[in-house]
Amino acid sequence: MSIRRIDVGPRMSQIVIHGNIVYLAGQVGEPSGNVASQTRDILAAIDEFLAKAGTDKTKILQAIIWLADMSTFSEMNAEWDKWVPQGHTPARATGEAKLAGPEYLVEIIVTAAI
Amino acid sequence: MSIRRIDVGPRMSQIVIHGNIVYLAGQVGEPSGNVASQTRDILAAIDEFLAKAGTDKTKILQAIIWLADMSTFSEMNAEWDKWVPQGHTPARATGEAKLAGPEYLVEIIVTAAI
Amino acid sequence: MSIRRIDVGPRMSQIVIHGNIVYLAGQVGEPSGNVASQTRDILAAIDEFLAKAGTDKTKILQAIIWLADMSTFSEMNAEWDKWVPQGHTPARATGEAKLAGPEYLVEIIVTAAI
Repeated sequence: MSIRRIDVGPRMSQIVIHGNIVYLAGQVGEPSGNVASQTRDILAAIDEFLAKAGTDKTKILQAIIWLADMSTFSEMNAEWDKWVPQGHTPARATGEAKLAGPEYLVEIIVTAAI
Repeated sequence: MSIRRIDVGPRMSQIVIHGNIVYLAGQVGEPSGNVASQTRDILAAIDEFLAKAGTDKTKILQAIIWLADMSTFSEMNAEWDKWVPQGHTPARATGEAKLAGPEYLVEIIVTAAI
Repeated sequence: MSIRRIDVGPRMSQIVIHGNIVYLAGQVGEPSGNVASQTRDILAAIDEFLAKAGTDKTKILQAIIWLADMSTFSEMNAEWDKWVPQGHTPARATGEAKLAGPEYLVEIIVTAAI
């Protein structure tokens, strides 16, 4: 079974497809924004990358969410709840983790079916 | 290949089945308890959700464990070691992460075969 | 579809193979070392475990990296960048998480195709 990589960088690929599963790199938002706007950036990037992989958000299997500060949980969730397709919600887990730089407030790691 | 979701909420599903793989949402325990009792709650929930998916703990592929305070590692492990089936132990990783609220001391994310 | 476990311990297995996917336990390095040397230890262990599973680093699908202190991000990346095969980079995410003991500075969790 072949592996297809899209948006391949020297350190990581944004999209890795194996069989009927796609793994996305951890997505972050524009660092100038707050938790809500970074979450919207991330969810838009996920939509875009899933489309490139030939799938969409109704087929997400698992989402791991890291928040730099768990006190922003409800702000992140407000954006998530508007975006996630009802009846097709993924398995999800959220933990607090500082990210690659202090300006990054949210990161989401998605695995989806194709 | 179809996706089957069980215990579907508006934000996440507890169980997502795709082909012969099941992804469980991150499980937490009763917040009134200590690390040992929360771990027991979580492991009982994993047993229950795996049964709903038609599988069991001998088929867990990966477990990611988050502890709110790594100083409780041995208390969590004491419960894990009593529960995990010998000869069928999963790939595992444990990191410290604050969870959705300060009352949550442990979270476990499981992927299993069916 | 059968599950094959290699280097099976009482708490976890280092390698779990299901179908054409291999899950490795979170790998850590020799605790006496710094971030660079621990990262090299980990990447060597990943090479070794992938070989035992019948695959190699050109087939890694996802890598989750935990750093005990995100200020060491560039030291970890310097080793990663020398090791990761160009054209075959995985989906990757890095978050800060304290690990099983304060002497552990890096942990990497890999999923690969076979």
